[in-house]
Amino acid sequence: MEPIGIIVKRESSLAEEVALKVVKVLDSFNVKFLIEENVEYKSLSDYSKFNLQDYVPEKLIVIGGDGTLLRTLLKIQDKTPIIMGVRAGKRGFLLDVERYEVEERVKDFLHGRYKVIEYPRLSVYANNRKLYCILNDSVVISKMAKMVRLTVSIDGQTAMRIDGDGVVVSTTVGSTAYGLSAGGPIIDPRLNVILVVPLNPVQLHLRPIVIPGDSLIEISLTAQSNEAYLSLDGQIVEELRPGSTIAIGPCPISVRIARFRWWENFYEKLYTRVLTYW
Amino acid sequence: MEPIGIIVKRESSLAEEVALKVVKVLDSFNVKFLIEENVEYKSLSDYSKFNLQDYVPEKLIVIGGDGTLLRTLLKIQDKTPIIMGVRAGKRGFLLDVERYEVEERVKDFLHGRYKVIEYPRLSVYANNRKLYCILNDSVVISKMAKMVRLTVSIDGQTAMRIDGDGVVVSTTVGSTAYGLSAGGPIIDPRLNVILVVPLNPVQLHLRPIVIPGDSLIEISLTAQSNEAYLSLDGQIVEELRPGSTIAIGPCPISVRIARFRWWENFYEKLYTRVLTYW
Amino acid sequence: MEPIGIIVKRESSLAEEVALKVVKVLDSFNVKFLIEENVEYKSLSDYSKFNLQDYVPEKLIVIGGDGTLLRTLLKIQDKTPIIMGVRAGKRGFLLDVERYEVEERVKDFLHGRYKVIEYPRLSVYANNRKLYCILNDSVVISKMAKMVRLTVSIDGQTAMRIDGDGVVVSTTVGSTAYGLSAGGPIIDPRLNVILVVPLNPVQLHLRPIVIPGDSLIEISLTAQSNEAYLSLDGQIVEELRPGSTIAIGPCPISVRIARFRWWENFYEKLYTRVLTYW
Amino acid sequence: MEPIGIIVKRESSLAEEVALKVVKVLDSFNVKFLIEENVEYKSLSDYSKFNLQDYVPEKLIVIGGDGTLLRTLLKIQDKTPIIMGVRAGKRGFLLDVERYEVEERVKDFLHGRYKVIEYPRLSVYANNRKLYCILNDSVVISKMAKMVRLTVSIDGQTAMRIDGDGVVVSTTVGSTAYGLSAGGPIIDPRLNVILVVPLNPVQLHLRPIVIPGDSLIEISLTAQSNEAYLSLDGQIVEELRPGSTIAIGPCPISVRIARFRWWENFYEKLYTRVLTYW
Repeated sequence: MEPIGIIVKRESSLAEEVALKVVKVLDSFNVKFLIEENVEYKSLSDYSKFNLQDYVPEKLIVIGGDGTLLRTLLKIQDKTPIIMGVRAGKRGFLLDVERYEVEERVKDFLHGRYKVIEYPRLSVYANNRKLYCILNDSVVISKMAKMVRLTVSIDGQTAMRIDGDGVVVSTTVGSTAYGLSAGGPIIDPRLNVILVVPLNPVQLHLRPIVIPGDSLIEISLTAQSNEAYLSLDGQIVEELRPGSTIAIGPCPISVRIARFRWWENFYEKLYTRVLTYW
Repeated sequence: MEPIGIIVKRESSLAEEVALKVVKVLDSFNVKFLIEENVEYKSLSDYSKFNLQDYVPEKLIVIGGDGTLLRTLLKIQDKTPIIMGVRAGKRGFLLDVERYEVEERVKDFLHGRYKVIEYPRLSVYANNRKLYCILNDSVVISKMAKMVRLTVSIDGQTAMRIDGDGVVVSTTVGSTAYGLSAGGPIIDPRLNVILVVPLNPVQLHLRPIVIPGDSLIEISLTAQSNEAYLSLDGQIVEELRPGSTIAIGPCPISVRIARFRWWENFYEKLYTRVLTYW
Repeated sequence: MEPIGIIVKRESSLAEEVALKVVKVLDSFNVKFLIEENVEYKSLSDYSKFNLQDYVPEKLIVIGGDGTLLRTLLKIQDKTPIIMGVRAGKRGFLLDVERYEVEERVKDFLHGRYKVIEYPRLSVYANNRKLYCILNDSVVISKMAKMVRLTVSIDGQTAMRIDGDGVVVSTTVGSTAYGLSAGGPIIDPRLNVILVVPLNPVQLHLRPIVIPGDSLIEISLTAQSNEAYLSLDGQIVEELRPGSTIAIGPCPISVRIARFRWWENFYEKLYTRVLTYW
Repeated sequence: MEPIGIIVKRESSLAEEVALKVVKVLDSFNVKFLIEENVEYKSLSDYSKFNLQDYVPEKLIVIGGDGTLLRTLLKIQDKTPIIMGVRAGKRGFLLDVERYEVEERVKDFLHGRYKVIEYPRLSVYANNRKLYCILNDSVVISKMAKMVRLTVSIDGQTAMRIDGDGVVVSTTVGSTAYGLSAGGPIIDPRLNVILVVPLNPVQLHLRPIVIPGDSLIEISLTAQSNEAYLSLDGQIVEELRPGSTIAIGPCPISVRIARFRWWENFYEKLYTRVLTYW
């Protein structure tokens, strides 16, 4: 059996603590594992390391928040490991396993007691250059707090002219993240759709748009626009000048996540997360 | 060839005028037609009549607004005529043909130069009694301007508790009507989904929800709720007491509409309609 | 000293229980009191009664929810008793005293240990006939779930054309009630303003409007509108036909409420109330 | 009579053309004027110049968009010239005069045929250091498209905890700019209030808040927050690290604008501006 890869959020004593629990269970079953070399915790320094650029194990355990998982996925674009996510932090909607149950779930992971859920991704191009496949969202957003002007077309039809902060294009799974905060609807996880949400537009009549998951979306900054960032799954990857174009379409390679609690009430989980006490 | 049925909006001189144009074209081609007997215009009084309860022609020409079409559909639940809609009034998103082109489009309709689009409907039950299949939306709404309390579950999962004016459940095609005014997103006409929108809820965190088109939705008025109306495609069909339940699921029989301009920009059509000058 | 009037919500064993506690404290201090004659609880049947139409005591204790208080105020338009409100139910934003502390607060009320807060009201006219002064809101709302069409002008300037469910005009104190659910902002209780919120308009660009507390608002149903209700502080008082006009302006007589906890965090109180667990 | 100062938007042939018209009228009346030295148009190069840092004339003519005016005001913090604004560009809500009428209005300006409107400003402090008085808005906004976490308190009461893009604090006059795009209400220009709007918060229950114009607002970035910009009237003036605090309160010095059309319908002007054709 191939070694399991372990990826741990940085600068989080909580994530370190969870990682030690995981390591202990793996050791007790004599399962080989490698720790991603960016992980700097002293308590994990004696274990063998791996580098995601060089080698992607078939099974990954990701410990941290949604950001940790999304950053990992940006690095392993064409590989499709099965990923077990363990939440060690405030937000972790994509991560299935809670800290208190981590030992049991690692055993389940080793013995195949889980369901693999495939999540579609979207492929993003900037100025005709292929960038990444994303799991959550692609955001065009004002760089210096100055209004950007852009046009959004969907399968060749002009759908929005936005003078404002920018636009979010999100997958179904990403719709509960930034898209929801920006005014988008809740989207049932069983649907394969894309959500397009304008960010604070001057055009008050604009509304979020829900389109088929295989649509082609083109975003153009007009010549009069201020500069913008392109942020993919939470990472700024480009600065966009006036006249830039972004194209977004289906990505051929999905993401595979191990789910241990797929029967949960989606709405309860969602609202509990956003209902921070006033 | 079977006679064509003609249905005309009442108390609208505009609709009457359009109907006369339609009749003239049909006469000039020696095509038989019948006029729905509720139509009371003197200028149409000499033509043969039909009653939708007794007989549904295979082809219908509906002249008026969206309301005229929706009321017609409520009456012909199990029949599936091909319907040509002519707009004679302010709102007519479902109706394809404009007044100025009506003669040309009637000829197209006679000669088969159109595309039949099938629109899924939803089947609505109140307190376990089957009511109707709807094309646009099912609305539970406060009867006497007093707060209703209800629970919405989706495929068995509780999704919303609403203390407010009620809830809208809309098809894709209905999503551009009341659902949009009530805060829902714009939904691409190619998707087969259901939109659930809470109406002015006290629970400020609630958001519209988009779910698969074959979902089962259950709405329960709590024992403490005030009374509500159930309005299907714009017609009040029931008064709902506390404790009532509404169930909404797929309807086996779709609606068939003749489309003459299916290449139009959906977004342009939509926004033009709502952008009444301030 | 004049007797204190006691008004109790009907059909609520909770309100009855609180009323008995209040009566006990008043008895122990030998304070005279009268119970409003609509109160039908057997446990309160032996006490002397009064009728609000005939006689309004200078001090009132209102036990129930916001609705109980608002209905009381509609009956005593020109009188200005000092009102102590005790919450016995789910919603009671206007009512200061909680059940657990009711004995202590009644003593405070008797001994003058409270602050009288004056709340401005709005005067409402329908078709040039004076109706009532309201504390919370005046709502024009569709009668039969059919679109109403109306125009709103503010101090003579046309401000909104609404095709939708209607419009809410609310005082500052009412802005945390229906106006907030309908999409209005939170308004600081120190401001004397009026909030105008369109209800689910087809015109997607419309937004809530905040105007000075002494503005004159005129609402006209167009000739093409469907019928509407006029609901004042939660009570339907008129049916409005097409062409009807509503005028709303300042009311010369304010409401006087005894406040025992005016130092509370307004925002905490507000959000705690609306954050029903998902 | 003191010379009139003229300020012209840069890199706009439209603004240059309008400036030449203004100069011609002033010349014909033998009125002295100076042109701000940053203005680089060749056609204006022969006229005497002035520098806003050294000298602020008692009367200013500002030609351009709202941004031109706001940048001018940031430079002349303590001076209170009477400002005539001429719109030469897309957005110019603060600027009263249209191009077609500029000659007539300059004559009106010379002969005192206008009304001076005083607009309150807000004073902004960052980390206890006084920055500027602003006319429109103070925006704390994410620097690198990563979530900021902040707390907003109003007169000492915690009012919002925001995990999102940031927060807008706007004056009445600024409420029709960014605050409106971000979901705030329309505020009547006669009110002196402050509008606080959260930017895309994870906390879905948050709503815009309207507070008295003399309130003290404190915004704190938590220790866990990502970095933010502080943008005052559209100009980034600070980078804010976690733990930073912003304080906003009344500014003793108002802005004085000459108004030539104060009788206009505010709502018509507003909606016409935002109703860009779909």
